Amino acid sequence: MGAPLKVAIAGLGTVGSGTAKLIQANADLIAARCGRPVQLTAIADKIKKSEPDISLDGIAWYDDAEKMVAQADVDVVVELIGGMGVAKRTVEAALAKRRHVVTANKAMLAHHGLALAQAAESAGVTLAFEAAVAGGIPIIKALREGLAANRISRVSGILNGTCNYILTTMRDSGRDFADVLNEAQKLGYAEADPSFDIDGVDAAHKLALLATVAFGAKIDIASVSVEGIRNVSAIDMQYADEFGYRIKLLGIAEADDGGISLRVSPCLVGLNAPLATVDGVFNAVVAEGDFVGRSVYEGRGAGERATASAVVADIMDIAAGRQVPTFGVPVASLKELSTKALDRRVGASYVRLTVIDRPGVFADIASAFRDESVSMESVLQRGRNANANVNVVIVTHDVEDAALLRALKRLRSNDAVVEIPHMMRIETPQPV
Amino acid sequence: MGAPLKVAIAGLGTVGSGTAKLIQANADLIAARCGRPVQLTAIADKIKKSEPDISLDGIAWYDDAEKMVAQADVDVVVELIGGMGVAKRTVEAALAKRRHVVTANKAMLAHHGLALAQAAESAGVTLAFEAAVAGGIPIIKALREGLAANRISRVSGILNGTCNYILTTMRDSGRDFADVLNEAQKLGYAEADPSFDIDGVDAAHKLALLATVAFGAKIDIASVSVEGIRNVSAIDMQYADEFGYRIKLLGIAEADDGGISLRVSPCLVGLNAPLATVDGVFNAVVAEGDFVGRSVYEGRGAGERATASAVVADIMDIAAGRQVPTFGVPVASLKELSTKALDRRVGASYVRLTVIDRPGVFADIASAFRDESVSMESVLQRGRNANANVNVVIVTHDVEDAALLRALKRLRSNDAVVEIPHMMRIETPQPV
Repeated sequence: MGAPLKVAIAGLGTVGSGTAKLIQANADLIAARCGRPVQLTAIADKIKKSEPDISLDGIAWYDDAEKMVAQADVDVVVELIGGMGVAKRTVEAALAKRRHVVTANKAMLAHHGLALAQAAESAGVTLAFEAAVAGGIPIIKALREGLAANRISRVSGILNGTCNYILTTMRDSGRDFADVLNEAQKLGYAEADPSFDIDGVDAAHKLALLATVAFGAKIDIASVSVEGIRNVSAIDMQYADEFGYRIKLLGIAEADDGGISLRVSPCLVGLNAPLATVDGVFNAVVAEGDFVGRSVYEGRGAGERATASAVVADIMDIAAGRQVPTFGVPVASLKELSTKALDRRVGASYVRLTVIDRPGVFADIASAFRDESVSMESVLQRGRNANANVNVVIVTHDVEDAALLRALKRLRSNDAVVEIPHMMRIETPQPV
Repeated sequence: MGAPLKVAIAGLGTVGSGTAKLIQANADLIAARCGRPVQLTAIADKIKKSEPDISLDGIAWYDDAEKMVAQADVDVVVELIGGMGVAKRTVEAALAKRRHVVTANKAMLAHHGLALAQAAESAGVTLAFEAAVAGGIPIIKALREGLAANRISRVSGILNGTCNYILTTMRDSGRDFADVLNEAQKLGYAEADPSFDIDGVDAAHKLALLATVAFGAKIDIASVSVEGIRNVSAIDMQYADEFGYRIKLLGIAEADDGGISLRVSPCLVGLNAPLATVDGVFNAVVAEGDFVGRSVYEGRGAGERATASAVVADIMDIAAGRQVPTFGVPVASLKELSTKALDRRVGASYVRLTVIDRPGVFADIASAFRDESVSMESVLQRGRNANANVNVVIVTHDVEDAALLRALKRLRSNDAVVEIPHMMRIETPQPV
């Protein structure tokens, strides 16, 4: 049995606390699997609970993470503070001191990951972030090592548990977005300021990290097209159900000879697709490689214990001496790929128009679609309401998004179309 | 860029050929991700095709694998011969020469894995087998590293693509087992001698390997209870459908304080279970850990390219210097766990009885179940056929298997019960 690996945790919130518990609860099997014990020797947090739910024996307590990094004699610093201020300074200080770093901070990595990975390389230490993407699912390891022999063409997934919980509940209950969000906030499944989750920002951060590893390419977080779930209505849920789809907030990253495209948006997913049945707070990622074909990874996307599982897996790789560059290859080897216009995607879409129910509207819609060569698979209008607003819902055949967007633009100049058309892509898995 | 890793392939069959193709096709990204090139420098196979579909430039050809190991100057020997004869001698010789070994040979490892892992440890080299279980899915890496911090309580899955193809086709077509097997043989999805697959032996080998890693325990392959799919009939498919289930050949390994249990058997799986929609030649594994909860891994379970993806991932770990004990911990640290009697399982079951359709039979069945306190959720008898054979199908409530087996034993002495009762467990995922 080798010498213990000494670990410091910066930030004893939900995930920090779970990580401490896990290191203590499964110390025996962690040591057996690493060939050496993993010891928690320092914790930094502003608030020290009077009755902590972990043992603090032998653990040095700091009220300041940067002070801990400066003073504590540890091998690994686990950054679970979040955000870009203290968290980033703590990580930078730890790397400068040649300490390995494990973090769950997707926002920091999506914005500053390359510089931090470069700093880790220069210091000859590990910067690992399994817990930053899809909680307990070991998807970063799968992409970086398990599927490493493959040229990955596409990685997609359900990456935000809050959105998936809201969408699942909307569907199950028939209730509208605002109502379900309000309840999710009361239950602690959504933040008081929910925009980071429901506007797709969090999913975009995770998607950028997945794409960096999957494609071995530099990803500019600003190049990710982001649309959240605020505009998904109860009526969309009903129509999707009727057409045989589920609505999911998907992150989709694709790479081909034309470049890469990254987008986060609510999509309709066929019931036979692997992501259709991933409900509630679960996350899932689908990776498509040139040799492995399609593989799917599903598990809890958040929560104290599942995220701790990922944090400690990274610590165990360090303890066992298994070193991998942060993004799978050294930063200098990451490719610069051009960005492909998102509207070049070819596929079916769902469109909901709010129109005034009067003669001729249907013909106007049909003409606009015809003029852009967009062919309709089905058109539905439930109920009549002469001269008042009604929903018209259209499912298109496969078409380039650009053509559909042109057709919708034509319709916006029609005074019977009273709201901005609501469009969602239909994602149908291709045979792989 | 470091010195090339020199690789020899023993056995240029389907997987060997795929591995050679992959090493050549993706040489650039493999080198980038490993920090050094991976070079195929030797191949052993009895037959050398006159028009091979890979480049043989710079590759030494041997018609004998053992001779190759003795003579070729390589870092890694990839054993893709299969079986226990030449394959095992080749692996033993390679390890004795301190060569790393990568293999897809589940039968060899299920029977001789501990001795071979011990030999690898003594030699200080890697013996890796990602490709032996679930084809392209990196499930061994997930259990050994990604979920390594967890105490795993259960690992289960669809582990044999041939059986899953047959069961999927039976359900889709309504045809009977023998008919579909015959077709699968013609299509090359089943071997001329199919017993290894359809009798569950192959799935048992894979389950034993999964359990060894998941539980960190020595598994005696003889302790795995094995039942194949020969007795699954078209009528079972119909009834399962009617009750809202799919029939899948599952391997299930469980560990608790009472010991471990391993079984391979056809099971009914609820439509909401993660394995219900895994069809055709796809495999899937569900792992349940004390921190991560339930996570699911799905992908192609066989085939030249998917299996090659797993073989090359193992080679890349070696190239990058990432070393892990074969089963996650050194052989000396593998635990000896007691075996738990399988009939202690508590759950629902499906029972099909073939009985003579005459007055009183139903009452006899009901009495036998009542006398063993087995409560029935539903009983179906489709059609009447006075004094001839009919099927009676029962779904029980949760009960210990032992009690149900006693009830079925009672019925076997009833002369109206004309065949051995056919029982399949219903697997309902517990909340995790």
